[in-house]
Amino acid sequence: MRRPDHLHKDRSVHISLSRPLADRLSEYAAVAADLGVDAVALVPGPNFTRAIGQSFMSHERPFLVVIPSQGQPAALVPNLELGSWAQVGFDGAVFDWRDQDGYDTAFAALLAHLNITSLAAEGQVMRVFVHHALKRAQPDLRITDGEAAISGLRMIKTPEDIAALQAAIDISERALARTLDSVRLGQSEKDVEQALIQALFAEGADDLAFPPIVAAADNAARPHAHARADYGLKAGDALLIDFGARKHGFAADITRTVFLDHASDEAQAIYDTVLRANLRGHEIARAGVTAHAIDDAVTAVLEESPFSEFIRTKTGHGLGREVHEVPYIMRGNHQELPAGTVFTNEPGLYISGQLGVRIEDDILITDAGCTSLTRFAKELTVLKC
Amino acid sequence: MRRPDHLHKDRSVHISLSRPLADRLSEYAAVAADLGVDAVALVPGPNFTRAIGQSFMSHERPFLVVIPSQGQPAALVPNLELGSWAQVGFDGAVFDWRDQDGYDTAFAALLAHLNITSLAAEGQVMRVFVHHALKRAQPDLRITDGEAAISGLRMIKTPEDIAALQAAIDISERALARTLDSVRLGQSEKDVEQALIQALFAEGADDLAFPPIVAAADNAARPHAHARADYGLKAGDALLIDFGARKHGFAADITRTVFLDHASDEAQAIYDTVLRANLRGHEIARAGVTAHAIDDAVTAVLEESPFSEFIRTKTGHGLGREVHEVPYIMRGNHQELPAGTVFTNEPGLYISGQLGVRIEDDILITDAGCTSLTRFAKELTVLKC
Repeated sequence: MRRPDHLHKDRSVHISLSRPLADRLSEYAAVAADLGVDAVALVPGPNFTRAIGQSFMSHERPFLVVIPSQGQPAALVPNLELGSWAQVGFDGAVFDWRDQDGYDTAFAALLAHLNITSLAAEGQVMRVFVHHALKRAQPDLRITDGEAAISGLRMIKTPEDIAALQAAIDISERALARTLDSVRLGQSEKDVEQALIQALFAEGADDLAFPPIVAAADNAARPHAHARADYGLKAGDALLIDFGARKHGFAADITRTVFLDHASDEAQAIYDTVLRANLRGHEIARAGVTAHAIDDAVTAVLEESPFSEFIRTKTGHGLGREVHEVPYIMRGNHQELPAGTVFTNEPGLYISGQLGVRIEDDILITDAGCTSLTRFAKELTVLKC
Repeated sequence: MRRPDHLHKDRSVHISLSRPLADRLSEYAAVAADLGVDAVALVPGPNFTRAIGQSFMSHERPFLVVIPSQGQPAALVPNLELGSWAQVGFDGAVFDWRDQDGYDTAFAALLAHLNITSLAAEGQVMRVFVHHALKRAQPDLRITDGEAAISGLRMIKTPEDIAALQAAIDISERALARTLDSVRLGQSEKDVEQALIQALFAEGADDLAFPPIVAAADNAARPHAHARADYGLKAGDALLIDFGARKHGFAADITRTVFLDHASDEAQAIYDTVLRANLRGHEIARAGVTAHAIDDAVTAVLEESPFSEFIRTKTGHGLGREVHEVPYIMRGNHQELPAGTVFTNEPGLYISGQLGVRIEDDILITDAGCTSLTRFAKELTVLKC
């Protein structure tokens, strides 16, 4: 397969968060005000990295930043991290704690300092042990789940975000091109997966965005297929590859399904249906359209085909610092999607025991319509291998 | 560097959980009884994988198994996962839920079925949104943090666990040997990191256990150093590599520090001190010794040297399915360590702006003493490169 022309070698992309820390934190103060709580809490994870401008790990040590709707933020920091924390440019009070002493005193001091009655946390990131530490320090503190509003700030991508996503996607597409060039009948799914992983890192991936799915034939019909070491690719197989690089903190998520040596008439008909559904997604996406409307239009193409019984999932999910984030592209989600939203458009058809076909692109919504950040060819492809 | 003889190519290790699911779940029922709660809850993560025998992801969808101290377990499962769940051999009630419907009804049905008043959760794994869903369904449900007792079941490794750890470690050591062979002055830390990552996957790693640390000179003194693309390795530099493969669900965690071209007298003295501290750890570890005693003995070697001001961390942490798990090898932790415990022994000295030295091994405690699962050479090494 000829490498797509546009995929020149990635030049070093300088991702800088050009706004000062105080500006970024004020966005979270505004979220607290909107939610009617005294403060928002962030723990290491995608929102923390976005807010602070640097990636930290929490593991078994509580670590959090609390941003009140009014006044200065405060942080509770493992002593081990103070050296790195000093580089962040944080202006608020810092309560550090050492392993040997435990963290309850630090939580008590943090909450005494903040003098708040309510707090919105990232329900999908903060773990129960941190929640419990907060409640031990202040039993009457009302802790609510502000996940949607807090993570919602990540939904509209900045130019820097989009550049990072594009970098992750370009790396992924170059790696896919190399991998498909090397596929041969008789190789195992595991062989292909290994080639893909090697290619991703060789092309500059910081990491894998998620464990790749490399699945042929009946395996391609399974939701969480694992690459088999003992299955040799056969002529006529569908080969489904769902993968992505992580670069500069952002994740790509792409799926292409190709056929080895030939594709049966039925396989071609299934592929054509999925492709038309995918193209409908690109057609309908624009600023102001709802997630419901996109899923509805894409799924309708599948439902109106002879293969409607082989539908399995919603159309897609938001994509950014996390592989799965808001907005979820599903019927019932009547959220209007603004320009700057990035989501996956991944219709598929899955016949248990036989084959699966998915075609997944990463789409940026614009005022005029949308831009596909993924550009890898998607017309039905038969590899002569 | 000559590849160590014992590191032949890893043959496929078949890791099977030979005990039936009901047996494994009964261990968690016993934990519930010990904790004086009606049930234990597990969410996808290392304990869930250990209990269920298969790895699942939760992402944005609540997914849990509840094991009462008496009676049958029950599960709340995203509908999408029912196909995979069916293969698990679970005997209890299953409450599934679809994206379109939300999960509150399923939680209500789960808790009505269980009829419990108290629940111990994995405080370091369960996220607040699941905690809140439980409380919405049953506001008077008492949820406590059972992390230590639940995850404590992973502390004593089975023969299968140890085989998986050894496989991860052997892959890591082969990758390190290849990488050190390829290091050259003038390469960047990023170049070395890339070579290491490629080698890890080429040697059979399922994944990286954690983002590697490849840090030279002053960078080696930083706690969470990132490999620099713009720093060329220089003669006399310390080069610290802290990394590990993940294999069959288990993580390796190894650090070696080498010197490029030559090592100054002071660097040699620092290295010798860290090595003696590391060896003291191997000397003292045996079944029944406390975590405190190990950290105390190892740290004392550093404290009694001229370099005591450059100590930064405790001696180490438990290792298994997670990179960081119980027991934490630190003063003040008077837990007696039983045979079957695996922990990292990683003393280090860190001079800001100059260099850092860490020597980290993965140790299995036995009745007679201990076995080092890591076998990579650790005498002071100067690479002629």
